[in-house]
Formats: sequence, C-alpha cells, structure tokens
Amino acid sequence: MPVGTLATVKSISQDLLEELGVQILLGNTYHLYLRPGVEQVRKLGGLHGFMAWPRAILTDSGGFQVFSLNELRKVTEEGVTFRSHLDGSSHFFSPESAMAAQIGLGADIIMAFDECTEFPAEGARLKASMELTLRWAERSKKYFDEHKNEVPWNRSTSGAKAPEQGEPNRSAEALRHSKAELNRSSGEMRTFGGIQDGPTQALFGIVQGGMDLALRKESAERTMEIGFPGYAIGGLSVGEPRGLTREVVESTVQHLPAEKPRYLMGVGTPEEIVEYANLGIDMMDCVLPTRAARHGLLFTSEGKISIKQARYAGDEGPLDPLCGCRVCERYSRAYLRHLYASNEVLAQVLNTIHNLSFYLDTMRAVRHSIALGRGARFLSEVWSRPKP
Amino acid sequence: MPVGTLATVKSISQDLLEELGVQILLGNTYHLYLRPGVEQVRKLGGLHGFMAWPRAILTDSGGFQVFSLNELRKVTEEGVTFRSHLDGSSHFFSPESAMAAQIGLGADIIMAFDECTEFPAEGARLKASMELTLRWAERSKKYFDEHKNEVPWNRSTSGAKAPEQGEPNRSAEALRHSKAELNRSSGEMRTFGGIQDGPTQALFGIVQGGMDLALRKESAERTMEIGFPGYAIGGLSVGEPRGLTREVVESTVQHLPAEKPRYLMGVGTPEEIVEYANLGIDMMDCVLPTRAARHGLLFTSEGKISIKQARYAGDEGPLDPLCGCRVCERYSRAYLRHLYASNEVLAQVLNTIHNLSFYLDTMRAVRHSIALGRGARFLSEVWSRPKP
Repeated sequence: MPVGTLATVKSISQDLLEELGVQILLGNTYHLYLRPGVEQVRKLGGLHGFMAWPRAILTDSGGFQVFSLNELRKVTEEGVTFRSHLDGSSHFFSPESAMAAQIGLGADIIMAFDECTEFPAEGARLKASMELTLRWAERSKKYFDEHKNEVPWNRSTSGAKAPEQGEPNRSAEALRHSKAELNRSSGEMRTFGGIQDGPTQALFGIVQGGMDLALRKESAERTMEIGFPGYAIGGLSVGEPRGLTREVVESTVQHLPAEKPRYLMGVGTPEEIVEYANLGIDMMDCVLPTRAARHGLLFTSEGKISIKQARYAGDEGPLDPLCGCRVCERYSRAYLRHLYASNEVLAQVLNTIHNLSFYLDTMRAVRHSIALGRGARFLSEVWSRPKP
Repeated sequence: MPVGTLATVKSISQDLLEELGVQILLGNTYHLYLRPGVEQVRKLGGLHGFMAWPRAILTDSGGFQVFSLNELRKVTEEGVTFRSHLDGSSHFFSPESAMAAQIGLGADIIMAFDECTEFPAEGARLKASMELTLRWAERSKKYFDEHKNEVPWNRSTSGAKAPEQGEPNRSAEALRHSKAELNRSSGEMRTFGGIQDGPTQALFGIVQGGMDLALRKESAERTMEIGFPGYAIGGLSVGEPRGLTREVVESTVQHLPAEKPRYLMGVGTPEEIVEYANLGIDMMDCVLPTRAARHGLLFTSEGKISIKQARYAGDEGPLDPLCGCRVCERYSRAYLRHLYASNEVLAQVLNTIHNLSFYLDTMRAVRHSIALGRGARFLSEVWSRPKP
C-alpha cells in the first residue's frame, strides 16, 4: 500500500495511481484529523469523495504518529494527550475518538487504537503496554460496532448534504461512480477472508508485545479472542535490527489465522516485502518508495540507484532496462539526473512513479509466483531473462 | 507556448503535455547553457532527445535572461559579459556564441541574439540599442548560415555517438521515434510561412525599438531586409503599462509580413493573448499559466480564482464547470484548496495542468474562431452556452 498521508500520495495524481495498478492506499488519521479535519472530509463524502479515489483505502488509528511525532505526549488509561506538530495545540485521542475519526474519514479498512511500544523496552513495560493495547482494542471494537453505520458513504444514515451549487456537479457524479466501484471492491474484499458482512468498514486488530515472542503470541491470541476480520502486526520498524524484525514477524504470523488478512505495518525494502510475503504476510505499507524517490533513491532490478551521482549525467540508458513504467519507457538516466540536480519538481514526480511501479511490480510478481505454487520470489528472479 | 525553462515544464511530465495538446514549448538558452550545459544536451541528441519531447521546441537567445537576471552585466559591441545567477561565475554571450548554443540545443526555432532595451529609455539610447540589435541580427544570421548543419539531430554531420551500453536502449529508440515525429512536424511547419527549406532549424529575427512607434517600424523593416523565416516582437512586458504594450504591438505587427509567423515574446493573460491574436500575432510564450499555478492562481471561464481562500474549503464543485481537463473532471475545489493549504506538491501539479489546459483551450478556440472567419474570440464567448 502506497502511503497517502494527507489524502495524496505525494506529487502523484489519482489518475496515475489507477494506471499504476494501485488497489489500496493508506491515509494517516493523525494528519487528516489535524488538516483538513475529520468533519470537513466527512461532509465531502469521506476520503473516497474528498480525494476522488474510488478504490480501497486503509487508515491507521493515529496511534503510531502520536507516538512518533510527539515527545510531550501523555498516556493514561483513557487515552493520549498530544500536541499538534503544526501549531502546538493540544489534542486528545482515545480508542473511541480514534474510531470516530476513522469512521468519519470513511476508509474501507480502519485500525484499532493501540500503543506502539518503544524500543528497547523492559519486560514489565512491554507487558503493561500490551495489556493497555488489548483493553483499547476492546473499546475500539465496542465503539465501532455501535457507530459503524455512521460512515459517510452510507448515505441512508449519514445525512450527507446534496451539492449546493446549481451548476452541473461532476464531482458528485464522480462520487456516485466511486461508490459503485467501491461496492464492487467491497464485494471482492468480502471473498478475501470474509472481512465484511455489509456496507460498513472493516476494523482490524493490532498485535503488540515488542520483541518478546511469548508476549507476541499472547497478544495475537487475545486479540483474536476479541475478534476482528483482519490482524496487523504493529510495533516493528521502531529502531530494532532487521534480523530481529524478521524473527518477530516469522514467529507472530504463525499465531494469526491464515484465512484472514495479516498486515505488517510500516515495512520495508523491496527485498524485505518479498521475504515477509513468504512468511505469510498479506498486506504491508511503507513510505520508503515515495520518500526515497524524493531523495533521488531509486529501486531497480539492478539494485538501488542514487540518481544524483555525476556518473549518470551522460547516461542515455533508461533508469531500469527491465522496467516498463512510463518513466523507464521514455526518459534517460541523464535527464532524471538533470531534473534532480536542478531541484525540479518533475524529479520527484518521475522518481515516485518509478519507485511505486517497482514496488507494485514486485508485489504482482509475488502474487503471480504464489499462484503458481512457487512461493513469493523477488522480481529479479522473475525478470531474470531479458525481455524479447 | 508553455515555458519549459530547464527542459521541463515545471512539475508536468511530457506524456501529459502531449495529452494536453501542446504543439510547441519554449526552452531558455541562458538556463540550459548554465545547467546541464549545451555540450551535455548536444551529446544526448539535443533538447528533443534529452527531454524525450518529439514535438516542436523554440529556444530564446539568452539575451532576455542576461538582461533580466544580471545587474552586473557589461554590454559591448562584441557581446555581453554576465554572471551566473547560480554561482556568480563570469560568462560571455555574443551573437555567435548564442547561435552556437542554440544550434547545440537543437530546438526547431531559435532566436537571434538581441539587446532587450530597458523601460523607460530615452530616444538616443533607444536608437543606439536598436542599431546594436540590428548589427547582432546580421551576425546571428551569418553564424547560423555557416553552422546550421551542426544541429545534433542532423546525425549525418554531428557525429553523435552511438549508445554505449550493451543493453537494449529504448531511449535511443525513442529518439529515433522523436526524429520521425520531428520531421513530420517540420514538414507541417514548412507549410506555415515557408520557415524551412531543409532539415535545419529556423532562425527568427527580433524587432526592438522600445515604445517608440517610428523606431519599431524602422526596426521591423531593417530586420526584414536582413531576412528571416519568422519575426518576433521583443522588448515588451518590461514594466510598461499594458495599454502601451497593446499600442506598440498593434502598430508594429502591421509592418511585419502576415505570411510569416509573427511572435510576441513574453505575454500574457488569457484575455491579452486573445487580443494579440486578433491583432495578427501568431505565437506567444509566457510563464504566467505555470507560475500562477504555483501560487494557487487559477484561470477559469468564470475569472481568476485564488484557490488558497478559505471559501473553497468546503466547495464540492469542480474548479471550472466548463472545463474538461483531468483536474476539473475529477477533483473538487475543496480538494485543490486542501492540497494548496497543506503545501502538497500535487497542488502544483494539478494547478499547472488546469492552467495549461485553460490556455491551450483558449488558443484552440481562437484558431477555431479565426478559421470560421469570426476573428479571435475569448473562450468564454465560445463557451457561453452550457454544455448539454
């Protein structure tokens, strides 16, 4: 899942995301709550209507950003008090308010409010944090069950306003079109793990427990007792060595049901996402392809390329000779290097298109390889023969 | 002509420019000379190959930028010494070196090296500056005639290198494709005023003379005596009132041959370009649509909109209800306002797409209206009836 923090995958129009084959993208509740605000998005038809994106969306609970962007946060049983990174104003997230925000944003998949435990953490701290996350998971589910019909695209109950302008409103038409596509994609989703039994969102639980494999097992089992249509592994990619990440994922995923989506939050490199898929992970999100693109770091079938290097200034070849994206089909490394060196916005646009394409190709190859019964394999293995 | 200063129309991929119907774009010799350098572009097949743009390109002579970006320039009979706005290094442009640079860049249409006279200027200064521009026009033409076969896409004479990499080079294929399209467009261009009589560039002369109508007439006549396949009116949009611009254009254009392209440099608003077309101007370039887009100023059939305003925060309507561009078809004003207020790069991308689309629609309507024998008319007149 590409990350679209503020209802935009940075620099890329939704038309292009569709063309790239993006099936689902992630929005950040914390950022959207601060700007433009949940009520604003809800009134405009939820994220789907607001950003004119008819395909699936997942929002996180805001918990991770509250922990990673706020040094002055205060955690109580009730919830978390934090300060806006924009203007320092004080805010409060509880399981209930995080659910209300995510219902208002109207993504297809939403996440229980959890505490992302810091790394490293002692045994007692890990245990207490995991218990808090479990209690918050119950409260998240309870609030969701009582309010799930308030989702903005459930027009029968949300009281969404008709467009006010007299002129033909194609945005409204687009939204209706979006709804049709959304229903289709919900229908498809229903066949994948039985996530939904009606036109509501799907609330996923989050497994915590730090790097303690026994606590992870306990967290998985007790989260499953609460019962969710999908499960995420949170609290990783928080500074631990990558070998440890892999160990925790490999162990934890075995305790989660294979017939429901298993979502590993916030990973990873192209090599890593193939590896995690091989371990049984179904869903991942990461800012890496889009953020690296902004820094001129490009993923290719020949490895990582830093396009800012002077060695590419005269390179007439395509960025990745085995890639068929719009960028590799049209532009030379020399041109991409010039755009980056000149600080041109088109550098970010083209680099992001390529990196997203590479990630999506990677996952397409993984799915194809799994369908053939060969397990997930890295793109370069699939691409190992030159194209005819 | 949209302006693509550094071989990119800021934030927009060439694919989209093609889709928008851009037939020709402008590159700035001054900027490209400094970065990535003429020799680099020449080795990569000229601007067409470098930026993978198969359609027409025009480069200015660098004269205007030398004058507008350099307070410490020194003008002599021989040429202009100036300092780079990037690193302060010292450089020299003469008619001959400006021609060499433009031949190396390989645009389809290139411009004689001129002095853009400041405004206001006294009679004696205006006259002397105009005479200098005429002498530089002769030198420009002489150098061009002696070196015009050195254009990089004239592969028989330029000695362009074959791609060095062993792998399939689709950039090279794209370039060959570009050449084919280029030849086609050159062919079409040949029917428009007889610009070219072979596979070389077309060098246009530039009329100067400040706001003095008699000097403008003299400049036009003596530039025509030197003889060019197209003529530009330079030295306007330099701070004079718009009424005066119009007066000078209206007077000067009458002294230029209607059967050759007449190019007014550096204008204008949508209303102005329609007005100038009505006066007989065939070509214009301006940074206004792209620069205004970056500042959230959008041109619509209902007038100019500043999308940053809070009044648009909840506006579900399209930016311009009569516009059919990708942006107006898909996104609401509320979303565009959110992107701009959040400083998202996609704001620049979408705003630029719309403004370019609006300008290109404006000129399409002008051409259509002229073809119908009604003279150039503003888009809103053509669009005055709501779409069915």
